[in-house]
Amino acid sequence: MVIDHKAIEEAAARTGSRVRCTPTIEVEAGGLGSVPVTLKLELTQHTGSFKPRGAFNKILASKVPAAGVIAASGGNHGAAVAYAARELGHRAEIYVPQTTPPFKLKRLEQYGAHVVAVGSAYAQAFIASQERAEETGALVVHAYDQEEVLAGQGTLARELEQQAPALETVYVAVGGGGLIGGIAAWYAGRARVIGVEPQSCPTLARAVEAGRPVDVEVGGIAADSLGARRIGDLAFAIAQQHVAGVVLVSDAEILAAQRLLWDRLRVLAEPGGATALAGWLRSKHGAEERGAVVVCGGNVDPARFAL
Amino acid sequence: MVIDHKAIEEAAARTGSRVRCTPTIEVEAGGLGSVPVTLKLELTQHTGSFKPRGAFNKILASKVPAAGVIAASGGNHGAAVAYAARELGHRAEIYVPQTTPPFKLKRLEQYGAHVVAVGSAYAQAFIASQERAEETGALVVHAYDQEEVLAGQGTLARELEQQAPALETVYVAVGGGGLIGGIAAWYAGRARVIGVEPQSCPTLARAVEAGRPVDVEVGGIAADSLGARRIGDLAFAIAQQHVAGVVLVSDAEILAAQRLLWDRLRVLAEPGGATALAGWLRSKHGAEERGAVVVCGGNVDPARFAL
Repeated sequence: MVIDHKAIEEAAARTGSRVRCTPTIEVEAGGLGSVPVTLKLELTQHTGSFKPRGAFNKILASKVPAAGVIAASGGNHGAAVAYAARELGHRAEIYVPQTTPPFKLKRLEQYGAHVVAVGSAYAQAFIASQERAEETGALVVHAYDQEEVLAGQGTLARELEQQAPALETVYVAVGGGGLIGGIAAWYAGRARVIGVEPQSCPTLARAVEAGRPVDVEVGGIAADSLGARRIGDLAFAIAQQHVAGVVLVSDAEILAAQRLLWDRLRVLAEPGGATALAGWLRSKHGAEERGAVVVCGGNVDPARFAL
Repeated sequence: MVIDHKAIEEAAARTGSRVRCTPTIEVEAGGLGSVPVTLKLELTQHTGSFKPRGAFNKILASKVPAAGVIAASGGNHGAAVAYAARELGHRAEIYVPQTTPPFKLKRLEQYGAHVVAVGSAYAQAFIASQERAEETGALVVHAYDQEEVLAGQGTLARELEQQAPALETVYVAVGGGGLIGGIAAWYAGRARVIGVEPQSCPTLARAVEAGRPVDVEVGGIAADSLGARRIGDLAFAIAQQHVAGVVLVSDAEILAAQRLLWDRLRVLAEPGGATALAGWLRSKHGAEERGAVVVCGGNVDPARFAL
């Protein structure tokens, strides 16, 4: 399967109204930066992140065995798989690292999933989930490195292009690369897609340097959503063709972007959800540039966000 | 001046890009209630509420003296007047009750206003602001009972109708009535406009019973934004013609609606901003009803919102 316009159109048709059309807002010059920018408010998606797009597409495109579906995730992907499985009437097992915040665990259980906490990082939870999948035959929904997952995430770009035609630049946070892979596959060079990564989770930047996906150390404020240890092979292949650049941002810049979103728009994003904006804020823009930033997640505990 | 389509069209032309076009989101059946509903996310407006619509319209339609503008407000209107005055290069004095939460005071000061805290309720701050206005000649921007303010708030409905044509019902929170007055004047019976009030601030419900605006006791969780002591004369006159009903909700229902907005949409509204949804939730709806709810404000301290 090639992840292209056609695959993304098929994903959009397949997922249909299972996935919300999330709003955009045009923010004026002076609102977030010196030039106007379009925000895609994907944090209003089911489960608070873009992840249901890929999860629904993968599950709906597959034959699901009685053992149901299984996923490994630091939180957002797991919530999306749990939600999609419940909506479609399947059993779900979600493997998470033990570092997952309690409110994210609570949501997984609200969606009716069986949750298993293993190890201190995503990679360990992932290995345990693979072993379990071999045992049960459950359908594996990968957090980023599956074609149907990428095509599903690409529906965000299809929607964005309808809402904000003729964009020149689109800023997207990168963890395992599922979202940017889908978005870059949709635009395929028609817009400059820019990846933004925390300095402490630089999976795409290191892969670009090395010429191939490589393991990186992960940490920092956004690790719970962007802390994949390496970029997916599928996303990297797309990125080499269709991602125009990578911007690295500090944790302080991410927190400043998160604060700015609240201060100027009453949008409360999680750190990973504010990361793309942090990249946009530290980049130069032409006064006439038509740019967009994807606010990809809002799974933050408001009580930990001090005014 | 009659507050009608023409006045609202003029307000929209006058305020132009000073005011943000705020997004709507279509929420599916099962998302917030058993039937679909459109939310108008007006909390993403400048200063976190709808109030700049009226403030900009009033100030731009007036000759502003050197003494600048003056307003009395429990917070949201004051912030809007302070913001609009700064944007337009005028001095602003804002009178607030001493019960105003510190983070709202901080915002007023961020917008460069001179803040004066007087008395324990809105009415006392209002009287003090009137005395001060007589002294200085500053332009009074009323929180709700001025024609240009109502016409400005009405631009929300004009925008909503473009975004979600052919609505049958629109739920709107009521404090002093500026917002519902503007919205009802726009729809003028073409949609059923329903006012929603906290049981503890029933300005419109009591006025409907009495046949005229009457003073009410105000209190409860949403008093800081909906706690006007009586409905405005202008809004009441419009409401008698064009408001189809009033729904009263408890503080517990408001808090449940606020929680639901966060849980299902990652939208963090203030209690007054979630009040219209509380009214929609306790009302019956036809399966095919095209309904909308205005989420009119997000000036809440996230740290006080426990998951």
